[in-house]
Amino acid sequence: MDQDDPAAAVDHGNLAKLERVGAGSDIAGEIYGLVGKSQFFAEFSREDISILSGYMEVYRAQPGEILIREGDQGDFMVLIVEGEVDILKKSRRAEQQHMTSAGPGMTLGEMSMIDGEPRFATCMASQPTTFAALTRDNMAKIILDHPGLGSKILVKMVTMLSLRLRQTSARLLRVMDEARQQV
Amino acid sequence: MDQDDPAAAVDHGNLAKLERVGAGSDIAGEIYGLVGKSQFFAEFSREDISILSGYMEVYRAQPGEILIREGDQGDFMVLIVEGEVDILKKSRRAEQQHMTSAGPGMTLGEMSMIDGEPRFATCMASQPTTFAALTRDNMAKIILDHPGLGSKILVKMVTMLSLRLRQTSARLLRVMDEARQQV
Repeated sequence: MDQDDPAAAVDHGNLAKLERVGAGSDIAGEIYGLVGKSQFFAEFSREDISILSGYMEVYRAQPGEILIREGDQGDFMVLIVEGEVDILKKSRRAEQQHMTSAGPGMTLGEMSMIDGEPRFATCMASQPTTFAALTRDNMAKIILDHPGLGSKILVKMVTMLSLRLRQTSARLLRVMDEARQQV
Repeated sequence: MDQDDPAAAVDHGNLAKLERVGAGSDIAGEIYGLVGKSQFFAEFSREDISILSGYMEVYRAQPGEILIREGDQGDFMVLIVEGEVDILKKSRRAEQQHMTSAGPGMTLGEMSMIDGEPRFATCMASQPTTFAALTRDNMAKIILDHPGLGSKILVKMVTMLSLRLRQTSARLLRVMDEARQQV
């Protein structure tokens, strides 16, 4: 599915251009309410969420606004609290391809938050979306101030990245296997 | 490249079947010597390596012996100290395909060590190979006993998995793009 370049929709896909709603601690209850539907937070206690949300900021994005832009230097991850976000990636011919969509409880942008590499894909709100952002600096503070919680978050990231890498590798091998059979 | 089923070469691909050489602390110096050529340990200090190696065990595998077997429940990761290991994965037609090879300083099996999911691929020594193993239990002990070092190892894992996921995703998109153009 090709789309118009969403870069045209908003000047900058960074947090500063989006509406800041407040501190994460203001919506700790709502974040805790996501635990049931969130792969990421499945094993987090109410206290874990209460501490973590104190290190997060809450933003709102309108449909068409960009949370994360492919190629940007990113230093934060996103937890979707409400709404829906499209994940888009440019093809070699510079067309935007729709990869998948993400909803409440899902996390985006963990990779660049940790390793500082350019964003792999663009995340654009497809509905009015509320999300909590965790920056690399605040993640580092959590590791220092609350090492137990810091490790729990990192272990969860490793688990989720492992799952995605297994799925993506399996898909790649399948596609390559099919291509070989056609030759 | 198809190969005979390496499962036939050794009864069990687990550590218990391989020659145990000693404690990781015995070869802390050798492990520290790998820092220069290891993506994983690039930012680890001599003290980090000294602590970490105290939680590792050293094994030796002969050519054809299996360190990690695809589908096994795995609970350890491997740091190759000397030698070479082939990474093999079964195709849908149950043929062993050679995916890549790994040498000194490279780590294998981090995903299952953390998430406990079945091993994604088989790792078989292609040369006499010395490696250090870190089990999930000992990783948990490091996190409790040395939270700073624990976080450092976990951040490194997130970084490496992110890199592999970016590379694999980019390759998948390229292969799918090529397949589309041929239709």
